[in-house]
Amino acid sequence: MSEILAVDLGGTNIRVARFPSAQPPATNLSKTPTHAAEGTEAVVARILQAIDALAPPSRSGMRIGIGAPGPLDPRRGRVFGAPNLPGWTDVPLRDLVAAHFGCPVAIGNDANLAALAEWRFGAGRGSSDMIYLTISTGIGGGVISDGRLLLGTHGLAAEVGHMTIQMDGPVCSCGQRGHLEAIASGPGIARIAAQRLAAGEASTLRDQADGKRELTAEAVGRAARQGDPLASRVIDEAAVAIGCHLANLLHAYNPQVVVFGGGVMQLGDLLLPRIEATARAQVMHPAYLEGFRIARAELGDDVGLIGAMTLASEL
Amino acid sequence: MSEILAVDLGGTNIRVARFPSAQPPATNLSKTPTHAAEGTEAVVARILQAIDALAPPSRSGMRIGIGAPGPLDPRRGRVFGAPNLPGWTDVPLRDLVAAHFGCPVAIGNDANLAALAEWRFGAGRGSSDMIYLTISTGIGGGVISDGRLLLGTHGLAAEVGHMTIQMDGPVCSCGQRGHLEAIASGPGIARIAAQRLAAGEASTLRDQADGKRELTAEAVGRAARQGDPLASRVIDEAAVAIGCHLANLLHAYNPQVVVFGGGVMQLGDLLLPRIEATARAQVMHPAYLEGFRIARAELGDDVGLIGAMTLASEL
Repeated sequence: MSEILAVDLGGTNIRVARFPSAQPPATNLSKTPTHAAEGTEAVVARILQAIDALAPPSRSGMRIGIGAPGPLDPRRGRVFGAPNLPGWTDVPLRDLVAAHFGCPVAIGNDANLAALAEWRFGAGRGSSDMIYLTISTGIGGGVISDGRLLLGTHGLAAEVGHMTIQMDGPVCSCGQRGHLEAIASGPGIARIAAQRLAAGEASTLRDQADGKRELTAEAVGRAARQGDPLASRVIDEAAVAIGCHLANLLHAYNPQVVVFGGGVMQLGDLLLPRIEATARAQVMHPAYLEGFRIARAELGDDVGLIGAMTLASEL
Repeated sequence: MSEILAVDLGGTNIRVARFPSAQPPATNLSKTPTHAAEGTEAVVARILQAIDALAPPSRSGMRIGIGAPGPLDPRRGRVFGAPNLPGWTDVPLRDLVAAHFGCPVAIGNDANLAALAEWRFGAGRGSSDMIYLTISTGIGGGVISDGRLLLGTHGLAAEVGHMTIQMDGPVCSCGQRGHLEAIASGPGIARIAAQRLAAGEASTLRDQADGKRELTAEAVGRAARQGDPLASRVIDEAAVAIGCHLANLLHAYNPQVVVFGGGVMQLGDLLLPRIEATARAQVMHPAYLEGFRIARAELGDDVGLIGAMTLASEL
């Protein structure tokens, strides 16, 4: 039997899971602090140790799948760098791990692998064309097109949160202007609410903002649930922006299903009806809506590990 | 030898070409007025006649490729309808033609087939990931992803001109707001120039606008070439909008090459440098630009026929 070890490399933790039968659930899981500030070599050494600790005694037939943040080239197996992994510039992670264990290794962008996981084992099961959107501190995702992960020439396709929907909009974490992430990510929602408060609008959020605690999307959502008009407007505008962008993505990829994940989806009951209504109203032809559905991600915190396992299962 | 008959169905003309060796150039070409106002049956009858007139005496092994405007489903062979083909709603064009000639038939969206043609025989030769953008009365295109035409579940993917880049922007021909087409198509450029004139801005274009001739993008381009400040600003803003959207498309599809075609590219010398500079400045990571290039379409007016031939060659 061919075992798969899956790695989810994050800025905070390195998570590893063992999948003896190339499907969920994992039989063993481990979590190690990344200590990203110690730099590339130290982190790579910790990844190798973490895999080693969980690998089966016999490593014949073992395969390894790795999800990593930031832009990376899955075909060349290189991580270009990520904001939360200082010092990582063009690291040949795949070949480093493959050389150490002498087995096949595949790497992928964490958001792409989450898309792969939701497609094979989660909310996108059975579809041929799917978009996964994770709305959290950032907005990322992945696209399945005709039964395959859409990669593009360097594996950088499907950066679905980094597209301009308002040319004169707010500046994004990536430095560009008017991206969906700048408008509707958790920090985007919090920033827009804070700006409205600073402009003098009345809101129950004022006490929090004055109390020097930083405003969060969660707090804005809580205030919206209690009927605060400013918070409700900010949440509504975020949902309209996501819905508008979703229509763009339907025109770009024509999927059967769009799966929403990420922490901001804890406000899903506030956001999703408006997202869906906006997208349906803004597609250019009703044929885009034939058989189309929106779903919530099903795989929770292990989605990255399941995606890395799925990627390795194709080796 | 397996002959291919290619059809380019337009709102004005039905063009047919014979490709005896499944590659350009065509050996015979014909052009018949569509008379679209006469409705679906009459137009389909004219398509059949036009193919018949050009088909070889022996039809064994013949294949037919058809490009048609508007949204259509290439897998089911149905044309959903197009603004310039009144009465066409969900017409099973592929099967009607296949039943008549008793041979394999494939249909595709005209912009997608132009992309296929430029990829196989034109400016995108040799690439694995390509975007074709045609900027004309409308803005359309097609995407080649990992060596295949990107279709989506109903063949409606890659509507690359119908994506919102300015949520409060002008209304598009499709009825939605802030699409690239509304801002940077030929009519979009002319409309923005006309609005600036109406608002009282000084320009050499005023004589034309006052003379009741409708302002065109061509006229705006001519005035820009002669140094007219209003015209220059309008052209520059269109180029910036296209460049901004091009960065979006790089994030969506991560292509090696983007091919620009369409009538507005007669202003390419005015537009392309600014389009390219804007897109390069607005990508979120320099890896998108590794090996990336912008090219002008090479195949001219026959691009649709060559695309239909290419599609049929895969049957």
